[in-house]
Amino acid sequence: MAKDYAVGIDIGGTNTKFGIVDRKGNILEQGRMRTDAHENAEEFIDELYELLRPMIDKHGGNEVFKGIGMGAPNGNIYTGTIEYAPNLKWKGIIPMAEMVEKKFGLPTRLTNDANAAAMGEMMYGVAKGMKHFITITLGTGVGSGIVIDGKIVVGHDGFAGELGHVIIRHGGRLHKGTGAYGSLEAYASATGVRETAIEFLTAEPDAPSLLRSYTIDELTSETVYNCATQGDAIANKIFEFTGEILGEALANFVMFSSPEAIVLFGGLTKSGDLILKPTVQAMEANLIQVFKNKVKVLFSDLKEADAAILGASALVWETEH
Amino acid sequence: MAKDYAVGIDIGGTNTKFGIVDRKGNILEQGRMRTDAHENAEEFIDELYELLRPMIDKHGGNEVFKGIGMGAPNGNIYTGTIEYAPNLKWKGIIPMAEMVEKKFGLPTRLTNDANAAAMGEMMYGVAKGMKHFITITLGTGVGSGIVIDGKIVVGHDGFAGELGHVIIRHGGRLHKGTGAYGSLEAYASATGVRETAIEFLTAEPDAPSLLRSYTIDELTSETVYNCATQGDAIANKIFEFTGEILGEALANFVMFSSPEAIVLFGGLTKSGDLILKPTVQAMEANLIQVFKNKVKVLFSDLKEADAAILGASALVWETEH
Repeated sequence: MAKDYAVGIDIGGTNTKFGIVDRKGNILEQGRMRTDAHENAEEFIDELYELLRPMIDKHGGNEVFKGIGMGAPNGNIYTGTIEYAPNLKWKGIIPMAEMVEKKFGLPTRLTNDANAAAMGEMMYGVAKGMKHFITITLGTGVGSGIVIDGKIVVGHDGFAGELGHVIIRHGGRLHKGTGAYGSLEAYASATGVRETAIEFLTAEPDAPSLLRSYTIDELTSETVYNCATQGDAIANKIFEFTGEILGEALANFVMFSSPEAIVLFGGLTKSGDLILKPTVQAMEANLIQVFKNKVKVLFSDLKEADAAILGASALVWETEH
Repeated sequence: MAKDYAVGIDIGGTNTKFGIVDRKGNILEQGRMRTDAHENAEEFIDELYELLRPMIDKHGGNEVFKGIGMGAPNGNIYTGTIEYAPNLKWKGIIPMAEMVEKKFGLPTRLTNDANAAAMGEMMYGVAKGMKHFITITLGTGVGSGIVIDGKIVVGHDGFAGELGHVIIRHGGRLHKGTGAYGSLEAYASATGVRETAIEFLTAEPDAPSLLRSYTIDELTSETVYNCATQGDAIANKIFEFTGEILGEALANFVMFSSPEAIVLFGGLTKSGDLILKPTVQAMEANLIQVFKNKVKVLFSDLKEADAAILGASALVWETEH
């Protein structure tokens, strides 16, 4: 029987999303569950099985499924393991692909979540047909997936593409998770924007700002966006500052791999031109001549959950080439 | 007749080196000429022909030669052209590969000089057998060649791997050639080391230093090295400063492509541990956990001229795969 379906699973720190995907990239059915409700990976897989098995059976059972693709933080495509993921409760090295394969009886591949998203962009998104591009996820953290010659860059050990951790401001802001000073993620993530807001508001205590009417817990990248659209000077300055740093980092990435496009993705992109304009301006300002006015900076047009599920499922088809 | 020879040509801003290379990477004969003595590319090729034609004929003529490989600043492997090279007198876009192919009657390929050096390292140097590595040339400028999955990264337009131009100190030292502030090349090149020396000596006019006995023209990376080996405090501080910046940049590169090794190359590497130790220390300090203590930082063991000629000649054999 033709194996025309795949399962895509995206494991995030809080939620796990999964779906049934056909060869054209249609998500026929999807579901979600809490990741962090499970203290160990076995229990996580038990719940996943309870939810996903009926979906697989409904669409024809294992015999019409080519396999399962998974994206996960610190997922390693070479080994199918999740290794020391700081955002997951499961410690050490988890042989996730092997465990899922055994439970479901379907061939299973696993990769880094950001790489899965890049794969989704390449097969079904704005990077369709591109051979050289970089996706940057601007979410709670900053993730990245790098595509060169039509292939995801995984590097010597499977962990390439940790662009959120490059140092962009020597001696700059402390990243509480990694202990690094001045890494991109400390600025260009939702968390970073919030920290910038607090910094700016406390640095200029007399400057009026709509942001001052929010409690410290309400100060998020969304509230900064809302205030910026109402013309708030500090809120606008926050986006300019964030874009300046992000754009400088993008210029460095361009001088590394000379991509056709950079695809931005995740919560911060909802701020549209507020983040895009200063980012592109700073990127262009920091590029040497040969790269100027060549590289497109695009927003992903896939829904966030979809890109992750699609990208993970794409791992299944990739083995056919 | 078996085509067991290749020509390797390395075009530099000042000198051009060329040689006859066999399949095992033996340079059977080599020569050099001035690049900058020729106002246009036609005259340059005329002199090259006069010197190189007799060598080719001596080894059996065109029928035993597989082709010519060339490395040049701003060389583009896709088009075989040299495009707007700031260090060459020939302006605009020069169809160098085509011109040489016509003149010699041999298939000719051209690439970026730093990429040619990386190819030499991969085929005949310390990176032999490695599939993922980065070469960094610390010469008058800072060049780079990136290898991923055994292939040189050239990117969307052929210009990937300009790592000397990444911004590593926001708002830092002006690079007079590019106009950028704080790029790696402004610090980690021979020119950069010299500037650092001048900065340190003028910043602390009362600090004693052997470097003060040299005229400003004599202050080079070599004199700094000589003074450092004699225990001069400022000279040692110059290497620490340079290594700190270089190492931070290397960490960023590692988090991009996760290479097995970084191969350092060029004049500054003659300083040995003086540059290597602070570089490795800074690299490790700036890597996130998953990359720590994994990446080798090696000095090239090829002679500089040899690596460039060998790497250029390797372009010829590469077409056979």
